[in-house]
Amino acid sequence: MESQFNSTLLEKAVAELSKLPGIGKKTALRLALHLLRRDPEEAKSLGESIIEMREKISYCQECHNISEEEKCPICSDPRRDKSTVCVVENVKDVITIEATHQHHGLYHVLGGLISPLDGIGPSDLEIESLVNRVAEEKIEEVILALSPTIEGDTTNFYIYRKLSELPVKVTMLARGLSLGNELEYTDELTLGKSIQNRILFSDSYSGK
Amino acid sequence: MESQFNSTLLEKAVAELSKLPGIGKKTALRLALHLLRRDPEEAKSLGESIIEMREKISYCQECHNISEEEKCPICSDPRRDKSTVCVVENVKDVITIEATHQHHGLYHVLGGLISPLDGIGPSDLEIESLVNRVAEEKIEEVILALSPTIEGDTTNFYIYRKLSELPVKVTMLARGLSLGNELEYTDELTLGKSIQNRILFSDSYSGK
Repeated sequence: MESQFNSTLLEKAVAELSKLPGIGKKTALRLALHLLRRDPEEAKSLGESIIEMREKISYCQECHNISEEEKCPICSDPRRDKSTVCVVENVKDVITIEATHQHHGLYHVLGGLISPLDGIGPSDLEIESLVNRVAEEKIEEVILALSPTIEGDTTNFYIYRKLSELPVKVTMLARGLSLGNELEYTDELTLGKSIQNRILFSDSYSGK
Repeated sequence: MESQFNSTLLEKAVAELSKLPGIGKKTALRLALHLLRRDPEEAKSLGESIIEMREKISYCQECHNISEEEKCPICSDPRRDKSTVCVVENVKDVITIEATHQHHGLYHVLGGLISPLDGIGPSDLEIESLVNRVAEEKIEEVILALSPTIEGDTTNFYIYRKLSELPVKVTMLARGLSLGNELEYTDELTLGKSIQNRILFSDSYSGK
């Protein structure tokens, strides 16, 4: 028996599936056997959608978000406010922020965060292109929407300094209590920040 | 924005991935974005292996295990003992038993277990073909290797009765203590069975 699965094709599919993050060999086998039980069209459709997605999706030349065209649908949407740019770590964060329906401007995807321990420096990220965008276009506000981590804060600070010479307002996401979380279980640092950054109660229901 | 993911191709791939068992929409998105970050060859290789596997793997006409040929590698292997047939529920069980290296005979894959509650009767399973195989070929022993559940026991009993007219020895997997599990934590039914089916100590190290 050459293959432990009695089929080199099954073995190959299991090997490919288990390259995916969080998919071990056992799960990969379960997925492959599931596909073998289902209609052949289902496997074909899955396989083709993966290949097509990877082939045709590239990155927007403006904001570096994923895009099927040179310019992504957000950058080319005339209804979006082109004076506000929200800086995010990655493509997933664009999807997450879009789902809130609270940001009506454009995005700028850095492609990561500054992390000396992982060997990621500013030049590995889309920071220069952000500075150029702000310098060349009529951008009035840059919203830093990075994770509240050491890497996020480092990157925030680096971008803030890089933009300091330019006439642009740099804001960042508020840090405070999570909605629905009890005060008792909020960590001290977050609670401390939420006291420092307290807001006028009247502002909280005026939609500001 | 037509697509919440800013790309209908990404949306399609996420939809296809989330059809897989145990893969929700969030995981599917994570997998798709992972593939977008990797080399295009990786997505191509994954997609093609899924399509090829589903297209080319069918079932062995003898034992109903998966096979790329009419007869699976186990059925066509001259070194396998053709007088012993191990009856299993599904393809995965063949892989599991093969991994023990303790069965040197052939297999017969039922494709499920009798389960009136799920509407699965004997005619939905490869039981008739098993009886025919035993009647027509020189099979001396049928090993019932089904799960020790109500469905497994029902199926065992049904097959046992169907084979009772034929000159074949019908055995089943031993039920008893799990290796490495403490006696204290073994359930009463299993412990009871292990007392009823106690074996000669001398047999346990003679490899019998």
